[in-house]
Amino acid sequence: MSHSPIETLSWHGDRFGTLKMIDQTLLPTELKVLECRNVEAVWEAIKMLRVRGAPAIGIAAAYGVCVGMLDLPEDANHEMLRRTLNNVTDYLATSRPTAVNLFWALDRMKTKAEGLYNIKNVAEIREALFAEAKAIHEEDRHICRAIGRFGQELVKDGSTWLTHCNAGGLATADYGTALAVFFAASEAGKNIQVYADETRPLLQGARLTAWELMQRGIDVTLICDSMAALVMRQGKIDGVVVGADRIAANGDTANKVGTYGVAVAAKAHGVPFYVAAPVSTFDLSLSEGSGIPIEERSADEICDGFGKRTAPDGCKVYNPAFDVTPAELIAGIITERGIISPLNRENVENMVRSAAQ
Amino acid sequence: MSHSPIETLSWHGDRFGTLKMIDQTLLPTELKVLECRNVEAVWEAIKMLRVRGAPAIGIAAAYGVCVGMLDLPEDANHEMLRRTLNNVTDYLATSRPTAVNLFWALDRMKTKAEGLYNIKNVAEIREALFAEAKAIHEEDRHICRAIGRFGQELVKDGSTWLTHCNAGGLATADYGTALAVFFAASEAGKNIQVYADETRPLLQGARLTAWELMQRGIDVTLICDSMAALVMRQGKIDGVVVGADRIAANGDTANKVGTYGVAVAAKAHGVPFYVAAPVSTFDLSLSEGSGIPIEERSADEICDGFGKRTAPDGCKVYNPAFDVTPAELIAGIITERGIISPLNRENVENMVRSAAQ
Repeated sequence: MSHSPIETLSWHGDRFGTLKMIDQTLLPTELKVLECRNVEAVWEAIKMLRVRGAPAIGIAAAYGVCVGMLDLPEDANHEMLRRTLNNVTDYLATSRPTAVNLFWALDRMKTKAEGLYNIKNVAEIREALFAEAKAIHEEDRHICRAIGRFGQELVKDGSTWLTHCNAGGLATADYGTALAVFFAASEAGKNIQVYADETRPLLQGARLTAWELMQRGIDVTLICDSMAALVMRQGKIDGVVVGADRIAANGDTANKVGTYGVAVAAKAHGVPFYVAAPVSTFDLSLSEGSGIPIEERSADEICDGFGKRTAPDGCKVYNPAFDVTPAELIAGIITERGIISPLNRENVENMVRSAAQ
Repeated sequence: MSHSPIETLSWHGDRFGTLKMIDQTLLPTELKVLECRNVEAVWEAIKMLRVRGAPAIGIAAAYGVCVGMLDLPEDANHEMLRRTLNNVTDYLATSRPTAVNLFWALDRMKTKAEGLYNIKNVAEIREALFAEAKAIHEEDRHICRAIGRFGQELVKDGSTWLTHCNAGGLATADYGTALAVFFAASEAGKNIQVYADETRPLLQGARLTAWELMQRGIDVTLICDSMAALVMRQGKIDGVVVGADRIAANGDTANKVGTYGVAVAAKAHGVPFYVAAPVSTFDLSLSEGSGIPIEERSADEICDGFGKRTAPDGCKVYNPAFDVTPAELIAGIITERGIISPLNRENVENMVRSAAQ
C-alpha cells in the first residue's frame, strides 16, 4: 500500500524527533514543509491554519505535546514532568479555542500521563506519551484507510466521480474520507476521473482537493460549483462522494455549503450520492438534521475573498458555512466499519452502536 | 415612470452633444461616468468593456457614429459626409469584432444614410442619423419596459425572488430583462426581496446585479451560487427569473452557466422558474437546445480570476460559458409581447411570428 507523496503531518525520529507539517496556507501555489522543533512553532501552525481539519489538528496537538516535552531535562522528576505537561497543554489549548479535536487530543495526552504517575518512571511516561501521540495518528490513518477500502468497492474501473469541498488527506492523517475512496480505487488499479467543485466561498476544492488529486496522479477537472448540474446532465458523472461535518441519527448530513445543491442535482439525474465519514461524525442525540445549527460566517468571505472587493459596499450577504442534506437524497454513508445503505435510522444506530462495543 | 438613478448610456444635448456611459469595469467599487466627446473615446470604451451587453454595445456604437460626425464641418458636401461616415463606422467596427450588435447598429446607421443621400441635404442627413441612434436607444428601452410590465404581473407583493448572472439595465438601455421584472414590480409599489447568485466565474451577480438592485432601493441579498438550492429549501424563494442568450424553437434556453442548476433546484422545490428575454433572442432555426453550441472559455477565469492564483498550476479546468435549460423546467418566457406560457413549440412560434407581422 503506497503512502501520500508528501504527508500532511509526520513525525521524524524517536521521541526526541521533529514534527513536520505541510503549510496549507501556501497551497496550491507553494509546497512548504514546516519543521516544528519547539512548541511555539506548533502553536503558531495551528493558530494560523497552516494545519487544518479536525483530525489533523488533533494529531498536530498530540505531537505538539511531545515537542513541548523536548526541553524537559532527562533527569526531571515526576513533579517537573507534570508541570511541564500542564504548561504545554494549557498553551496549545489557546491556539484554536473552538477546535473540538484540539481539546480531545490534549485531554487524551494528559489522561495517559495521569494513569502512569504512580507506576512508571519519568522516562517511561515520556515514552508512553510519545506512543499515545503515534496511536492518535495511527488510529486516524486506519479509519481513513478503512473508509477508502469500503468506498472503493463502489467505484467501477473507468468511472467518473464528483466531489465538493475538501474531505481529503490534508484534513486527516494522510488519506481523507471522501478522497480516500478515490485514492483507494486508484491504488486498486482502477482508472478513474474526478470533477472537483471549486467550493465557494473559500475554494477548498480548487486549492486543496485539486492539488491532492494531482499529487496522487488522479485525473481531476476543476469546475465552478454552478457547473455540477451541467456535467451530470452531460452524462459525465457516475457518482458523487462528499465528506460530512455532523450526521444526525436518521442520516441527515451537515457538510460544507453547496453539498445539498449537489445532492438535489444528483437525484434529478439518477446519480448515486454518497457521504464518507468516520463513525465519530454521527451525533445520535440529534434525531434529524433540522436540529443541526448552521453557522453563518463573515460577508467578507464572499465579497472580499480574493484580495479584491467583488461586491458593492454595504451589500447584504447570506453566508451559511454548512447545509444539511436529507437522508432520502443519500445512497449510503461510507464509514470505517462498512457502508450504511439503505440509509435509515435503524441501520445508522446498528453501525454506530457496533462502534461502542 | 421613474428612470434609472444613473443611466447606463445617455446622450446629452442635440446632435452636437455628448455620449455619457457608466464605466462598468470600475463597478461595484467606483461609479464613474465617462463623457465621450470624440470617437476614439467611444472606441476605447467598447474595446475595454467599459460598456458591455449586446443591446448596450449597439446603442453605444450608434451614438458613437454621432460623436464621430462632430468633426465634420457644417458646410461639408455629400461626398465628405459619406467618407466620414464610412471611416467612423469602419473604425468603430474594430473595437469588438465579435459583438453582433455592434455591426447590426453600425449597418443600421449606414443604411439610414444610404437611403437619404439623393433626397436630403447634409444637415438633414446628419439630423436623421442622430434620430436613428436615438431610435435604437428608445426601441431597446421600450422592449425592456414592456418585459418589466408583463413580468411584474407574476410578482406578488411581499414575495422573494432569485436571479442568476446580470440581465439588468447595465447590459441594455436602462431597465434590463430579468431585472426589469423586479424594477417594474418595485415601481408598481410592490415590496419585494431578491437573492442574487454571485455567478462564478466572472461574478456578474455580485458586481453588477447586486449593485443595480441596491441603486434602485430593492432589498437584495448576495449568495454564492452553491447556496441557491439551500435558500429554496428554506422556503425563502417564491420564484426565479433569469435572462437568456439564445432560445430554441421549443423553448430550450441558453443562458450563463449555472442557470440550469438553478432550474433543477427550482423544479425540486416547486419554485416557478421564468426566463425574461426579447423576441429577438429566439432562434427558430434551432429546433431544440441541443443545437446550441456551448462556448468554452479560458481556465484563467476560474483559476486566476481576482489577481490571485486559486488553483494548482496545470490543473485541468472545464469552463463552459453557458448551459442550456430544457423547456420542461421553465414555467414561462417573459417577452416584450407577453408571456409564453405554457412553454411549447406552438406558443413560441405564435409569439415570435407575431413579431414579424
